[in-house]
Amino acid sequence: MPGNIFGTEFRITTFGESHGKAVGVIVEGVTPGLDLSESDIQKEMDKRKPGQSEVSTSRKESDIVHIVSGIFEGKAAGTPLTMIIFNEDANSESYENVKKLFRPGHADYTYYKKYGIRDHRGGGRSSGRETAARVAAGAIAKKILLKTGIKISAYVTKATGVECIDCDLFEIEKNIVKACDSKAAKTIVERILRLKEDGNSAGGVVECKISGVPAGLGEPVFDKLDADIAKAMLSIGSVKGIEFGLGFKSADVTGKENNDQMGKNGFLSNNAGGILGGISTGEEILFRIAVKPTASILSEQKTIDINGNEVVCKTEGRHDSCICPRIVPVVEAMAAIVVLDHLKRQKAICV
Amino acid sequence: MPGNIFGTEFRITTFGESHGKAVGVIVEGVTPGLDLSESDIQKEMDKRKPGQSEVSTSRKESDIVHIVSGIFEGKAAGTPLTMIIFNEDANSESYENVKKLFRPGHADYTYYKKYGIRDHRGGGRSSGRETAARVAAGAIAKKILLKTGIKISAYVTKATGVECIDCDLFEIEKNIVKACDSKAAKTIVERILRLKEDGNSAGGVVECKISGVPAGLGEPVFDKLDADIAKAMLSIGSVKGIEFGLGFKSADVTGKENNDQMGKNGFLSNNAGGILGGISTGEEILFRIAVKPTASILSEQKTIDINGNEVVCKTEGRHDSCICPRIVPVVEAMAAIVVLDHLKRQKAICV
Amino acid sequence: MPGNIFGTEFRITTFGESHGKAVGVIVEGVTPGLDLSESDIQKEMDKRKPGQSEVSTSRKESDIVHIVSGIFEGKAAGTPLTMIIFNEDANSESYENVKKLFRPGHADYTYYKKYGIRDHRGGGRSSGRETAARVAAGAIAKKILLKTGIKISAYVTKATGVECIDCDLFEIEKNIVKACDSKAAKTIVERILRLKEDGNSAGGVVECKISGVPAGLGEPVFDKLDADIAKAMLSIGSVKGIEFGLGFKSADVTGKENNDQMGKNGFLSNNAGGILGGISTGEEILFRIAVKPTASILSEQKTIDINGNEVVCKTEGRHDSCICPRIVPVVEAMAAIVVLDHLKRQKAICV
Amino acid sequence: MPGNIFGTEFRITTFGESHGKAVGVIVEGVTPGLDLSESDIQKEMDKRKPGQSEVSTSRKESDIVHIVSGIFEGKAAGTPLTMIIFNEDANSESYENVKKLFRPGHADYTYYKKYGIRDHRGGGRSSGRETAARVAAGAIAKKILLKTGIKISAYVTKATGVECIDCDLFEIEKNIVKACDSKAAKTIVERILRLKEDGNSAGGVVECKISGVPAGLGEPVFDKLDADIAKAMLSIGSVKGIEFGLGFKSADVTGKENNDQMGKNGFLSNNAGGILGGISTGEEILFRIAVKPTASILSEQKTIDINGNEVVCKTEGRHDSCICPRIVPVVEAMAAIVVLDHLKRQKAICV
Repeated sequence: MPGNIFGTEFRITTFGESHGKAVGVIVEGVTPGLDLSESDIQKEMDKRKPGQSEVSTSRKESDIVHIVSGIFEGKAAGTPLTMIIFNEDANSESYENVKKLFRPGHADYTYYKKYGIRDHRGGGRSSGRETAARVAAGAIAKKILLKTGIKISAYVTKATGVECIDCDLFEIEKNIVKACDSKAAKTIVERILRLKEDGNSAGGVVECKISGVPAGLGEPVFDKLDADIAKAMLSIGSVKGIEFGLGFKSADVTGKENNDQMGKNGFLSNNAGGILGGISTGEEILFRIAVKPTASILSEQKTIDINGNEVVCKTEGRHDSCICPRIVPVVEAMAAIVVLDHLKRQKAICV
Repeated sequence: MPGNIFGTEFRITTFGESHGKAVGVIVEGVTPGLDLSESDIQKEMDKRKPGQSEVSTSRKESDIVHIVSGIFEGKAAGTPLTMIIFNEDANSESYENVKKLFRPGHADYTYYKKYGIRDHRGGGRSSGRETAARVAAGAIAKKILLKTGIKISAYVTKATGVECIDCDLFEIEKNIVKACDSKAAKTIVERILRLKEDGNSAGGVVECKISGVPAGLGEPVFDKLDADIAKAMLSIGSVKGIEFGLGFKSADVTGKENNDQMGKNGFLSNNAGGILGGISTGEEILFRIAVKPTASILSEQKTIDINGNEVVCKTEGRHDSCICPRIVPVVEAMAAIVVLDHLKRQKAICV
Repeated sequence: MPGNIFGTEFRITTFGESHGKAVGVIVEGVTPGLDLSESDIQKEMDKRKPGQSEVSTSRKESDIVHIVSGIFEGKAAGTPLTMIIFNEDANSESYENVKKLFRPGHADYTYYKKYGIRDHRGGGRSSGRETAARVAAGAIAKKILLKTGIKISAYVTKATGVECIDCDLFEIEKNIVKACDSKAAKTIVERILRLKEDGNSAGGVVECKISGVPAGLGEPVFDKLDADIAKAMLSIGSVKGIEFGLGFKSADVTGKENNDQMGKNGFLSNNAGGILGGISTGEEILFRIAVKPTASILSEQKTIDINGNEVVCKTEGRHDSCICPRIVPVVEAMAAIVVLDHLKRQKAICV
Repeated sequence: MPGNIFGTEFRITTFGESHGKAVGVIVEGVTPGLDLSESDIQKEMDKRKPGQSEVSTSRKESDIVHIVSGIFEGKAAGTPLTMIIFNEDANSESYENVKKLFRPGHADYTYYKKYGIRDHRGGGRSSGRETAARVAAGAIAKKILLKTGIKISAYVTKATGVECIDCDLFEIEKNIVKACDSKAAKTIVERILRLKEDGNSAGGVVECKISGVPAGLGEPVFDKLDADIAKAMLSIGSVKGIEFGLGFKSADVTGKENNDQMGKNGFLSNNAGGILGGISTGEEILFRIAVKPTASILSEQKTIDINGNEVVCKTEGRHDSCICPRIVPVVEAMAAIVVLDHLKRQKAICV
């Protein structure tokens, strides 16, 4: 079974390659009657679009979203809602030198082994450009969730080895790396620029908070809320790990320390990160993902070509020296899709 | 949509509660003609079964697997293979005192909010007992994989805050905590017993290695191999995080350090943990999961009852003071199910 | 992908072969809190069970249903509800003579070509015995539907070439062929017995009426209500066709005659059979299925063995000379499952 | 769960409304490396496109297919293949008079009850225009199947009450009603034109033959090959029934007459229509569908408006007086998608 569909009640099917004509998405399950316009989507697209700052890729894409179905007189019709984002600044020429070889850290080799095809143009389907479609779909999910009081915020808590000490959600949009601590943000930007100069790149950690989720969402035993969020996050390129609540630190503490006791007004702590037994507790959902350093670096690396010969590769193309800030809206989008899906799944339980 | 089904081509549907009559599983996609007997399954069941050591629960379950369909003359018939494991030592009386309250750290509260039902008997469906069905299904997957040269090994690398220094797979079965380092194992056992005496519990980290996986498995962009493994692992109770290859450490290194370069004989390193772009590279797949300390502790904790009144809870019942050793076979089982599923999915690509 | 799962929100996974240990089903999506006991199920099982009359097989199965999970204190717990029906009177010996050959009209040859296995014992998984599991699951669906005012009635309208003139639902349980016309029933019974004596068999037509379905159920464009009912019905062994409302007769009339006009109190006719554009209209849903004559006949027939040699086959075993009466409860069960599934799907639309 | 996805291994997701910007489809599971161009698709599109003859609608659509993803250097890349067909001649004005009322025989009322939205423009998503996307996807499936020797032919065997006596596949493309008998075709055309003049419409029967299907396709017990074909066909607008092989006639014959006996060279007859127990026998697959008369008629009919008031409706718009000839390519497309899907499903069985 192919893998371009995500979700059950709120369900997306995405398509498109980095240097093809377009990327896009069909969204099913949009609440019929919902007021929806392209500008609702565009707002979110603009958060992800390339070329926003000096730490980002220089590729210029306006990322204009075109809704081609599913809307009638400004309202969602209940029918599949399709959005297309055309690729405008695909510059495949700069990929000519890697046409027949596999760039280290990229999916070039694995796609070739899977499909027997080497689409060298900017990573093809494995490119981060694919996530534009997710952000478009997520924008709709976020709008629906907001009406029920559910809010999602993602931000960078670590990059280039520098960790945020404070966590101030108002800081996020004030710095170009979307960090939740202005001081840390400054150092992170400096370090990214230095790495960039050096033909190198950085990774980091993105955290996500979801507030307003009612207790009871998640489907035991396999479609647990955290299991589905984990799948959603690991399906984003460059993500190498996820943890909920205390996460890997929970391995080191005792049960007495870790258990969240309860009082009249809810839980007395939230080490669980808002999920117990795969079902939401009503507390804030909290998770963090590990983002590896951008695979594209302007340095020579050993690799092989499609005939198996050893060669030296020097990536050109355009890329982000640290992908974390641009992953932030993708994390929010995928989180929104999972939560909305489970909100709808819960509705189907009682008939 | 309910959530008791996992997989696509190799697909399992599980059922059963901790103190109901039985737990079990229907397995679809077993290779027709495969030699299969109950003893093939029992071997794996015995690795998970309770009461094996002083760090484990005192519940006594022989965990005998009964195959009730899908086998004809000792061979898999291609039809759904059903296995049942009866609950023998369900002692619901010791749960009487928690009948109307929610045990901290457990899924009592969330199940109640979801279904409006309080099945207090040993955790009901949210109990670790449910994983017996997964191990039974995984035993079949492992047998099929082994014929294609794929081997899966999970083991404890950390518990009670003590980390393994060596990683010797031959050590795993020699110590009761399934650690990969005999020295660390000793300390871990001591610490667990001390915590147990203190009415407390411990968590840890379980690592899993999968060797022999051919390059090319995984379905972009949502059903990536790592995304599906992440979902499988987070669907196991008590698991709070997962990381692949360098994992969260990749957030701190640079692209130059992190990229796995290639030579004639394959990759020169494996920071990726055997997966790039969601597709297997042919290298060893490596991941680690964070396991929280057992929620059941013999200490007083604050909680509320189903009427919202504040009460004090003291769990009795039987439980593992550290669940890590018993999660090991479950990790192997779920990993086997994911890999076999993707092996089959890859077969369907070319017609 | 294997095919033993049906439904989405109300979802069943079945297992079991005719002469294995048992048949059974895991049901997901049972409304939590629903009062449910084995006797609720047994009532429906008894309608399908073999050996009820002289036109039915002489196989004696008490078809006692055992609920092994999903119930807590007499109520559905929201967890998967598993039911097992043990095979008691499997007499595999009478199938020894067909062990190595393919019975005409049966699935012997096709199962062998698919799986490479020849399970000769009473048809294995392809036996009508598998439908016991469907009836058990359907009994739950029917109970839930009844609470919302939805009723399902199936009955024989034709068999042995004899058609019912009247359609009186009160007659159905009064005759052993479940026909809706007592006069026709008499002739049908006579003809079946004559065919039986002659080592021959008969087919027929089963009609199904579903009342109380609200307008709006069905999911365009592929999961239309009629499309899902059609799949459900064609998934029952021996069914060779289905038609809704006017059905094949609609091919012969004009648009003026066929269109159902509307007035204040609803539709002025129901040629559509209660479904337009794949969505329920609120009128009675009406469909008919074609049932082929029982493949098992006590007469010599030409066939081949598993080595391809031409041989003569004379089926022994036990069987129904006309399967129509026993398909009736299966039709009701599958119809109930589809309608309940779509009722739940509709709930998920609005969040 | 919404319903715009069909298939498992070869899977399509469609979108688009009759008078929106476009209709289209994402196709997953296209064999990587397959030579594919827009002209391969266009050939099939031209068979379905409107305005081809005097019995067809006067709407003029060039139905040009644009491939926007999934192709690299003229070959399928293994990634989702997206096709868009823009709506060019949408004339919504002629639907102004039905803006607030429900046309008899159409899905206007049921869509309104389901989604609470009245998209009056040419039927919206329920329009036959949606099938353009199916034909585009089916063109790819047919191309892949042809390479394995599987051919699909659909044609009209009955319309306006006139039945074909001969069945000559070479005649199909020679007459504008795609009938398999030239004499019958003549009468059918005459009758359709007469009905058209009279503001009336006709239905008919479409038959489909699939040759070259190997024995063994189909997934018991729910995803039987005939069950999946039935679902596919009933998901096409205006289809009210389906029968395989002898179909409804099998209800009238005896087992002796109906059973297909076997000899060295295969089956001695094919009353089963090429499917036994839901699995292909290797014989030609044969089925027929009942198509109701076009709901749009230029005559006054009673109906209600969205406020429940009784009104008189006179459809204008453009439409086919008999939809049968234009359903022919849709039947072939959906049949191809089902068979290819099951061919791929069978591949996944053995690992």
